[in-house]
Amino acid sequence: MIGLTDVPEVSRELKEDIQKVIDSRTKPLGSLGQLESLVLQIGLIQETLAPKLMEPVIVVFAGDHGVAQDGVSPYPSEVTAQMVRNFMQGGAAINVFCQQNDMDLLVVDAGVSGNLHFLEENKNVLGFLDLKVGHGTLNSRNGPAMTHQQFKTCLERGCQVVEDRHGRGSNMIGFGEMGIGNSTAAAVLTSLLTNAPLEKTVGVGSGCNERQWNHKLSVAREIYDRHRNFDGAFDLLRRVGGFEMVMLAGGILEACKKRMVVLMDGFIASSVALAVIQEVPQVQDYLMFCHRSASPGHQVILDSLDVEPILDLRVRLGEGSGMALAYPLIQSSLSFYHHMASFSSAQVSSASAST
Amino acid sequence: MIGLTDVPEVSRELKEDIQKVIDSRTKPLGSLGQLESLVLQIGLIQETLAPKLMEPVIVVFAGDHGVAQDGVSPYPSEVTAQMVRNFMQGGAAINVFCQQNDMDLLVVDAGVSGNLHFLEENKNVLGFLDLKVGHGTLNSRNGPAMTHQQFKTCLERGCQVVEDRHGRGSNMIGFGEMGIGNSTAAAVLTSLLTNAPLEKTVGVGSGCNERQWNHKLSVAREIYDRHRNFDGAFDLLRRVGGFEMVMLAGGILEACKKRMVVLMDGFIASSVALAVIQEVPQVQDYLMFCHRSASPGHQVILDSLDVEPILDLRVRLGEGSGMALAYPLIQSSLSFYHHMASFSSAQVSSASAST
Repeated sequence: MIGLTDVPEVSRELKEDIQKVIDSRTKPLGSLGQLESLVLQIGLIQETLAPKLMEPVIVVFAGDHGVAQDGVSPYPSEVTAQMVRNFMQGGAAINVFCQQNDMDLLVVDAGVSGNLHFLEENKNVLGFLDLKVGHGTLNSRNGPAMTHQQFKTCLERGCQVVEDRHGRGSNMIGFGEMGIGNSTAAAVLTSLLTNAPLEKTVGVGSGCNERQWNHKLSVAREIYDRHRNFDGAFDLLRRVGGFEMVMLAGGILEACKKRMVVLMDGFIASSVALAVIQEVPQVQDYLMFCHRSASPGHQVILDSLDVEPILDLRVRLGEGSGMALAYPLIQSSLSFYHHMASFSSAQVSSASAST
Repeated sequence: MIGLTDVPEVSRELKEDIQKVIDSRTKPLGSLGQLESLVLQIGLIQETLAPKLMEPVIVVFAGDHGVAQDGVSPYPSEVTAQMVRNFMQGGAAINVFCQQNDMDLLVVDAGVSGNLHFLEENKNVLGFLDLKVGHGTLNSRNGPAMTHQQFKTCLERGCQVVEDRHGRGSNMIGFGEMGIGNSTAAAVLTSLLTNAPLEKTVGVGSGCNERQWNHKLSVAREIYDRHRNFDGAFDLLRRVGGFEMVMLAGGILEACKKRMVVLMDGFIASSVALAVIQEVPQVQDYLMFCHRSASPGHQVILDSLDVEPILDLRVRLGEGSGMALAYPLIQSSLSFYHHMASFSSAQVSSASAST
């Protein structure tokens, strides 16, 4: 098992100095709101008065879930593999947004069911890693979704992906996911970790109608009851999560160890982050929550962590799309910090507190 | 007076066809939330199934307010001119964000008090227009801020700015403002147009402390009482607004007449939009509200118009900064619409409604 105690606390020492730079800019104090918090967070993670972002990359982990056999999604399991192919052909939302905002995209087969046909056509596809741990998980309705060994392997492979990207110069990484059935897994995970009722965490996922939602809720309740006596957040993640979710957990841990800025996407990725934070609390300071998903369970997680995400566009797509959309705003936080004039350099009068 | 009835209704005919394209993309139905509404709006404004944005420009109108003499802002009036110089030197927030997101920026002296010293150094400054109507308005505490003639001139000059930009190929324009004292004007305007109490519309502006806020409120109340028997929204705008605000109104009207996408910034710009919409209701369909300002009066306006802005970053800076920050998301709405694969082209199974 990778060392859970290796994540350093982010720096506190520079807080005042970074704030001084922010306040020197020609704008009313605090008037850039959340952009000011973002650049402060980056500075503290990077321990510098000159924060910068290099080689930003989004890693999408894909995997299938045994529970999808129980009809928790209106889409069949095959869609996971089909969407991976769509990623590789550049046709998915995450492709389009990464391209627009100049972010690199890496797709990882963490455990997609069946074989990915595009791989047979071209074994060396750029931007793709075959790290398949299995052909989908077992059905968590009947028992743990994966073995201890599979869980460990997923964590390690998630770490390795991040190590590699860090080695190539990335200091910011975001984790997305794709897996039919994984919003059911995220709902059970979130409810058991926060004590929120399943009615608040089971959402429409990729688009249930009411009857489908009721069925999804009843399946989630069976999984919840079967695994309620779990032994810590990671044990629960092993019991109900997917290979893509556990690799994501490993990726988060390694990225924090490397003092990278870690972008967080919506409900499923955040449910994994919640589990990681329960195991390693100092992780939270590295996470930048990019958007509020329209999935209701996401709000449960955001409330539990007391964080306010950057965007609130009622997006509920996964894939990492919320992170790619938020990235220009993160860049704006650095832009104002580095490029705005100061009151003194621009000879602008500052505020009077005494009038 | 420019013709107020010349603003066409946006197209309704193409709504279903545009929605079909949106729904064909490889994502769960509706899962891109507000991005889907944005591209639909652009398509309806442009009356096309192939919406696009060309030569986006932000126009910042600057002007001074007589009421600033009464100490409603912690900053002195001179800061308006100083900030215009800062805009021209590239050091303000709006410069930095326009540069980052590849938007053009035009600064207009609508009525700054005193002379702009940078102009003496260089008469032909790129990105600047001297359309000064006066050296600041009169103090609305004592009577109307401007004459009927000044009001008319401001509207016409605002139109001309837009006509010029439209002629150069812009089909999207955003209006920002800079003017010490204008958050007091916006508060009175908003309260009188919506019947909201001044306590809900008078904010900290550029950063009042509690004592300054109480003073600002009492000044706003005097202006409110003096002008409460106004004759329509434009008469009120003339009585309490600034030259920069009225040019902004003219700009909005002309942009709608030209079927341009009109970006809306925060509290002050939106208070002007509210007045324009009360005169010409069909204007609202052209407006894209880019962010929710931290100024409390902005929420009053958004509620009154029943609109949900794109960003909510607790920014309260003005200058058009919220529009420049939101622009990449507007681009994302076009990116997904034009560049994502469809379910059929990508051979991805679509959802089942019957399972």
